[in-house]
Amino acid sequence: MAMRYYRPVVIWLIFLTSFGIGISWKSSGWGGQSLEPVRVLVAYHSMSGNTGKMARAVGKGAQSVPFTLVEIRRVSEVTANQLFAADALIVGSPVYWSNMAGEVKTFFDDWQFKFGVYPEFKMRNKVGAAFATGGQVSSGKEITMLTILAAMLGNQMIVVSGGGAFGASATTEGESPGINEKELADARALGKRVAEVAWMVKDGQFNPSNDEDLIVK
Amino acid sequence: MAMRYYRPVVIWLIFLTSFGIGISWKSSGWGGQSLEPVRVLVAYHSMSGNTGKMARAVGKGAQSVPFTLVEIRRVSEVTANQLFAADALIVGSPVYWSNMAGEVKTFFDDWQFKFGVYPEFKMRNKVGAAFATGGQVSSGKEITMLTILAAMLGNQMIVVSGGGAFGASATTEGESPGINEKELADARALGKRVAEVAWMVKDGQFNPSNDEDLIVK
Amino acid sequence: MAMRYYRPVVIWLIFLTSFGIGISWKSSGWGGQSLEPVRVLVAYHSMSGNTGKMARAVGKGAQSVPFTLVEIRRVSEVTANQLFAADALIVGSPVYWSNMAGEVKTFFDDWQFKFGVYPEFKMRNKVGAAFATGGQVSSGKEITMLTILAAMLGNQMIVVSGGGAFGASATTEGESPGINEKELADARALGKRVAEVAWMVKDGQFNPSNDEDLIVK
Amino acid sequence: MAMRYYRPVVIWLIFLTSFGIGISWKSSGWGGQSLEPVRVLVAYHSMSGNTGKMARAVGKGAQSVPFTLVEIRRVSEVTANQLFAADALIVGSPVYWSNMAGEVKTFFDDWQFKFGVYPEFKMRNKVGAAFATGGQVSSGKEITMLTILAAMLGNQMIVVSGGGAFGASATTEGESPGINEKELADARALGKRVAEVAWMVKDGQFNPSNDEDLIVK
Repeated sequence: MAMRYYRPVVIWLIFLTSFGIGISWKSSGWGGQSLEPVRVLVAYHSMSGNTGKMARAVGKGAQSVPFTLVEIRRVSEVTANQLFAADALIVGSPVYWSNMAGEVKTFFDDWQFKFGVYPEFKMRNKVGAAFATGGQVSSGKEITMLTILAAMLGNQMIVVSGGGAFGASATTEGESPGINEKELADARALGKRVAEVAWMVKDGQFNPSNDEDLIVK
Repeated sequence: MAMRYYRPVVIWLIFLTSFGIGISWKSSGWGGQSLEPVRVLVAYHSMSGNTGKMARAVGKGAQSVPFTLVEIRRVSEVTANQLFAADALIVGSPVYWSNMAGEVKTFFDDWQFKFGVYPEFKMRNKVGAAFATGGQVSSGKEITMLTILAAMLGNQMIVVSGGGAFGASATTEGESPGINEKELADARALGKRVAEVAWMVKDGQFNPSNDEDLIVK
Repeated sequence: MAMRYYRPVVIWLIFLTSFGIGISWKSSGWGGQSLEPVRVLVAYHSMSGNTGKMARAVGKGAQSVPFTLVEIRRVSEVTANQLFAADALIVGSPVYWSNMAGEVKTFFDDWQFKFGVYPEFKMRNKVGAAFATGGQVSSGKEITMLTILAAMLGNQMIVVSGGGAFGASATTEGESPGINEKELADARALGKRVAEVAWMVKDGQFNPSNDEDLIVK
Repeated sequence: MAMRYYRPVVIWLIFLTSFGIGISWKSSGWGGQSLEPVRVLVAYHSMSGNTGKMARAVGKGAQSVPFTLVEIRRVSEVTANQLFAADALIVGSPVYWSNMAGEVKTFFDDWQFKFGVYPEFKMRNKVGAAFATGGQVSSGKEITMLTILAAMLGNQMIVVSGGGAFGASATTEGESPGINEKELADARALGKRVAEVAWMVKDGQFNPSNDEDLIVK
């Protein structure tokens, strides 16, 4: 779409970032439009380290989309600034008794009690997604992901899946101990998907991970 | 059913309890069988007082079933002894972001982290049920009740509804502020239902709230 | 519990059934109490045969509990008589788009449209449970089982899990094609669990699969 | 954003549509970009007429967003062409036994069995949302909406709420018979929300219902 107009700038940015200069540029010409990076926040809780491993793979997937800045934080460390600066939020939790961990539920509660998201719906239109780890195949990973998405829908976020029907997930005990390569690939697919949708929401059909969209014609 | 055999004892108990002597009796004759009371624990979280009000109505409903002992506790106060002594557990929560409160989720998590219910499944075969309060009509009361039941199912509890399709619930804002009489009646219906099913599980079809079952023929 | 009183009868029944005479006996002495078998209905939908395979294993598990009669039927074949004669109902479905199959949902709808369960709540106090098969690990088996249980809870049934946190389930594609032995064992565990709880509900703590309960002391 | 470049065209379109000429225009200049209308399909099942009433209000809300074409169809009438031509899909169902109607579930199943959406994920990136009607306050409207959204997430659609935490809903019996004005307003809010998000996904932050975005500077 109209992205074509700032493709020269895009190419220039690719050049800059390859030198590690980062994306701090803000266009001042062409009527004031800008190419801001998409910011993806990955927030998780982890005790055994499994969900943390998934979180890093989710982050890597999001990072693979050009001009995307990724932060990975434990839910207990997320600040209001980080939350509100994000264009997209991906929340991950281990399954405790068929649902997200109390720490993750408390994180959502704090959106109101500490960060005051309501009644302005400060998370409105941010892209949201979920991932989960659980000991058994069918003992709550789906519920965990769907209730994370339900919390996001209540906040008027725009919700997607990726790396699985409701998000990325991993079975960590029994015949499938820990996180295997397929599960990590699903986590990366989720991160990539979220970053791409965040770009779509921000700038329409422009897809920075599609080379076609970056070529000046 | 075979209840008939200790109906004289039952009548005697009614007499005793009317003097406030309580049910401390344990049969030693007739092959050792006993009439233990059914113990119902109502555990809830409440900030505004609405869920607390529902909890007391749930307790009143359970209490209306003869030989039923009821305890009502905030989730943060429930001890391992109280939990494991109960024949039935009814958990109530306000809706925070489409799901139970973090405090209630943490309560369930503590079943493992503090009380060590797993791997013995110490809550197995106890009767479980849920109630919820929420500001709006359809913003999470169902999810809250169903995820409470899901946590109980994961613990191999025996789960019922009552006072509504998934349990008792109340809408506390908008056109229906606070807890109204119909909602309290639903809460009482839930408590009564749970106590009756707990009796069924404990002693088969014997229903202590049915006078017929208490008459010596 | 008071079961002791008809243990001689129980022993006699074991003798009779060993001759294939079946359980048609109904006590006329001791005040009219009886030992009716528990009837478990397993209803399922299956196209590929996977859910059918699970259904038969569920049935086998229920059958392993003495004095338990099992019927296995496709949901499209279940009659009102079969439904209402059952003490316990176990419903199985493949996952189609994150939920039970339309055929299974229509079966539940027919409880009202064809069988008129409401407003009398004709399924009240029957024991209910669920099982599911799905292509991927986390693409709807949990939702399928929980929404089957939710339909049952709306009917005031008494709901249990077994062979898994929400019921028995099998992943049928990818790294785990078809139904494997562990999944069949889970299905049998579900059937056994449901029959045992149905006995508890019917006759209190009497457990016909516990030899102790069948010995005359 | 870059929308500014075709704002003259937008103004011209407003002029044209005010004569009822419709939006059939497709730009051929400026490198081939175009302003296609957003197409919103509202698909529902209704027996009593309540869900149909909600469907029309949802449609009206979507229609209120400029350049948005709306079709309202019973699920049984939706063709593959209608489904795949839509940029956004809003599905509504009455609650039958704690879940969507069998007709609506079968509609989703037909996406595969009749329309062959998988494995290409033909619904990918379309915006999805849900609405529900139910007799009681908490007897399945949430589950109905969330499982509709779950089916959409499994199809890699982009999912939003609106007019309520999970979508628009109406209680149709008891103290709140039929569909009241607040419930219709929620339905309209859902339709508007979905059309706006469909625009965002299609063309970035451009919001055709915001006058600011339509003014040539």
